[in-house]
Amino acid sequence: MSAKDKFHEVVKTALIKDNWLITHDPYPLQAGTFDLSIDLGAEKIIAAEREGLQIAVEIKSFMSPSNISSFYGALGQFIAYRRALKVQDSKRILYLAVSTDIYERFFITSFIQELVTENNVLLLIYNIDNEVIQKWLPLMNTDNI
Amino acid sequence: MSAKDKFHEVVKTALIKDNWLITHDPYPLQAGTFDLSIDLGAEKIIAAEREGLQIAVEIKSFMSPSNISSFYGALGQFIAYRRALKVQDSKRILYLAVSTDIYERFFITSFIQELVTENNVLLLIYNIDNEVIQKWLPLMNTDNI
Repeated sequence: MSAKDKFHEVVKTALIKDNWLITHDPYPLQAGTFDLSIDLGAEKIIAAEREGLQIAVEIKSFMSPSNISSFYGALGQFIAYRRALKVQDSKRILYLAVSTDIYERFFITSFIQELVTENNVLLLIYNIDNEVIQKWLPLMNTDNI
Repeated sequence: MSAKDKFHEVVKTALIKDNWLITHDPYPLQAGTFDLSIDLGAEKIIAAEREGLQIAVEIKSFMSPSNISSFYGALGQFIAYRRALKVQDSKRILYLAVSTDIYERFFITSFIQELVTENNVLLLIYNIDNEVIQKWLPLMNTDNI
């Protein structure tokens, strides 16, 4: 299993443990003439549901030697997917899933924090070792769903 | 010379032919702890000046098999560079340089047009064969500079 596939499976397991139902893997996303879900270079997204709340999750492994370059791709993909979702499935909320390791080493730097805030990127932070969701940012009050 | 370097040189030549003075190649761009100009994965940016107007140009070759993945990276990089410029050199205007070929085959599709507009991406479209600037989008009235 590639590292990319491993992260994908970990996020899926973490969502299931958190009582989410995986509804699509991969989630089929169209935008005009583009079939975003079969794109070669990008990472696949999964869709999940919990008591009426629907989410799509972009999973980024940050396996390339440059975290900032991986981030450029993740940010651009997030913005494009969010726009496509707005047309296709407007109630579904998009999250970017990153591991605690990458979050603590990279996402907490002020420049990345500013970009995340400015572009309204929602984060799902997961623990690879325990295969659990560590945090939703901004906080998701899952007790009320 | 790699394809990436070739595009870089073509854009530089096209700017010079259009009476721009190349002031930095690559342009040194810092953002907090990140030195964006020496990043491994990203393409280098150049800076130019013409009668008081200062620009920075991100040159994207779109050489990967997936145009949409290249676009994700270009869009994320553009947004990050624009933010870094705002702090370091707030009068400098950032452009994304793409060839006429990529522009006509890819950028004119409605989905990409929407993303370009929504994210205020400024485009410099250049002709590879003639090594000239074809168009600035939105139009730049260079006669008035």
